[in-house]
Amino acid sequence: MAYAYYNGEFCKMEDLRIPASDRALTFGDSVYDVAIGHGDNIYLLDEHIDRILRNAKRLGMPDLPSHSELEELIRLTVKGSGIIDVSVYFQLSRDLEFRSHSAKKCKKTNILITVDFIELYNIPENVSLISRDDVRYLLCDIKTTNLLPAVIASSEADLSNCDECVFLRGDVVTECAHSNIAIIKDGVLLTHPLSPHILPGITRGRLLSLASELGVPYRERAFTESELLSADEVMITSTTKLVRRVLRIDGAVVGGRDGRLFHLLSDALRDDFYRFLMAEENS
Amino acid sequence: MAYAYYNGEFCKMEDLRIPASDRALTFGDSVYDVAIGHGDNIYLLDEHIDRILRNAKRLGMPDLPSHSELEELIRLTVKGSGIIDVSVYFQLSRDLEFRSHSAKKCKKTNILITVDFIELYNIPENVSLISRDDVRYLLCDIKTTNLLPAVIASSEADLSNCDECVFLRGDVVTECAHSNIAIIKDGVLLTHPLSPHILPGITRGRLLSLASELGVPYRERAFTESELLSADEVMITSTTKLVRRVLRIDGAVVGGRDGRLFHLLSDALRDDFYRFLMAEENS
Repeated sequence: MAYAYYNGEFCKMEDLRIPASDRALTFGDSVYDVAIGHGDNIYLLDEHIDRILRNAKRLGMPDLPSHSELEELIRLTVKGSGIIDVSVYFQLSRDLEFRSHSAKKCKKTNILITVDFIELYNIPENVSLISRDDVRYLLCDIKTTNLLPAVIASSEADLSNCDECVFLRGDVVTECAHSNIAIIKDGVLLTHPLSPHILPGITRGRLLSLASELGVPYRERAFTESELLSADEVMITSTTKLVRRVLRIDGAVVGGRDGRLFHLLSDALRDDFYRFLMAEENS
Repeated sequence: MAYAYYNGEFCKMEDLRIPASDRALTFGDSVYDVAIGHGDNIYLLDEHIDRILRNAKRLGMPDLPSHSELEELIRLTVKGSGIIDVSVYFQLSRDLEFRSHSAKKCKKTNILITVDFIELYNIPENVSLISRDDVRYLLCDIKTTNLLPAVIASSEADLSNCDECVFLRGDVVTECAHSNIAIIKDGVLLTHPLSPHILPGITRGRLLSLASELGVPYRERAFTESELLSADEVMITSTTKLVRRVLRIDGAVVGGRDGRLFHLLSDALRDDFYRFLMAEENS
């Protein structure tokens, strides 16, 4: 059963109630992050905590917890849940008693943490995408709850029996609704550079580090829709699904032409994850 | 004391608690609207209800209230509040027990209504703006709670002791963080045409109708930053502040050169509002 923490109290998720002063509800004035793990072994938790705190500071949220305070709350919520294979969601939001677009008078940041079971061992490898114009704002490098464009795109993908939606800003492939995207062409891994157009994905970063360790050449540069459709391989990365292989976009077959290199990279990422999960002591 | 309605229950605003399944909290999967009034006389309420329901339908929200059902709930909440000069906020949000970007499985739409006191009679006429690049998404024609860019801009305006922030998309003036903007030049009223770049403001629409009735020529066309800075008058419109005169942008003096026409329009709008408020029976 899902479990939650909010501003000092723990409870079952179904009993959680949020006051109307939480500006996540009415202004999307909130940043979040998600990590997954097994027991105490929460994969790349430091990176996820660093990211949410960096984003919260960038927005000027007041009275933030320290890294170690937030980590302790996350670990307490995971422990309290009694769940072993966990997805843990954490959100920081500004609080104000009255409605005001300006956050100048906010003195308090709310902390929400929720823990739920996640299937860690049978993540389907192959996925199909739809494509849509990237209508999102130019703050995509901040992980905020202003997710409506991602909701619309993900819902359309779901209604088309696809797994994700890839966004095109003009001719350029940016990322997916809730994943980063990369291609392999002629033995080189390509992915959009860090910019306000994409989220700096933790899994994206880990994949690039592993590529480097393996001696696989990679470049962070924008690639076009036609490069996407003619790539040797197309792959998407995300915290909860790690790395998946894209074999169809808008119904057309893509990729599937360099399985050796795709699996070298995806196996390295999955090995990195599962070895971490099974370690004796990581916390 | 502020008063609220949520999914069938009325309560004091400070006692309101929202369940975690409300996707306004974590996905910004929510649309809202605001109206103001005196007792039963809520100004342009039909237009505000039409807009929120149009937006909710466009997003495919399930099981929506009818216009008359939502109107009845709004009027009951206003009456229950005991407040006479009211700002009433209403929000529709999708609900789902588990976290999923896709809204396909949502079967329920939450209804939130809050009522608070608002000062209706002493709205300062003159305002100062800052300007910022318009980094918002291309869904600005939908009134959603994905308001973080407006929060950032409004906070920066507030910290600069200004009242609002005007957005520039490249060289083009779109609108403000929570108001529409119009200029007067050579006796003609100009404002950005309806598009995904601006909110179709109810007060903006009312101002154009009144201009038409008064025989004031107007055009809905994009105007540039240099046209803004050299305009005879600059004005902003919004539900809660009606119409205000802009006399400074980023510290530089603007407008103030056609007070006759500015006041003809602003008086017409204020008269329209106050006459409606004072009418015997409008509900």
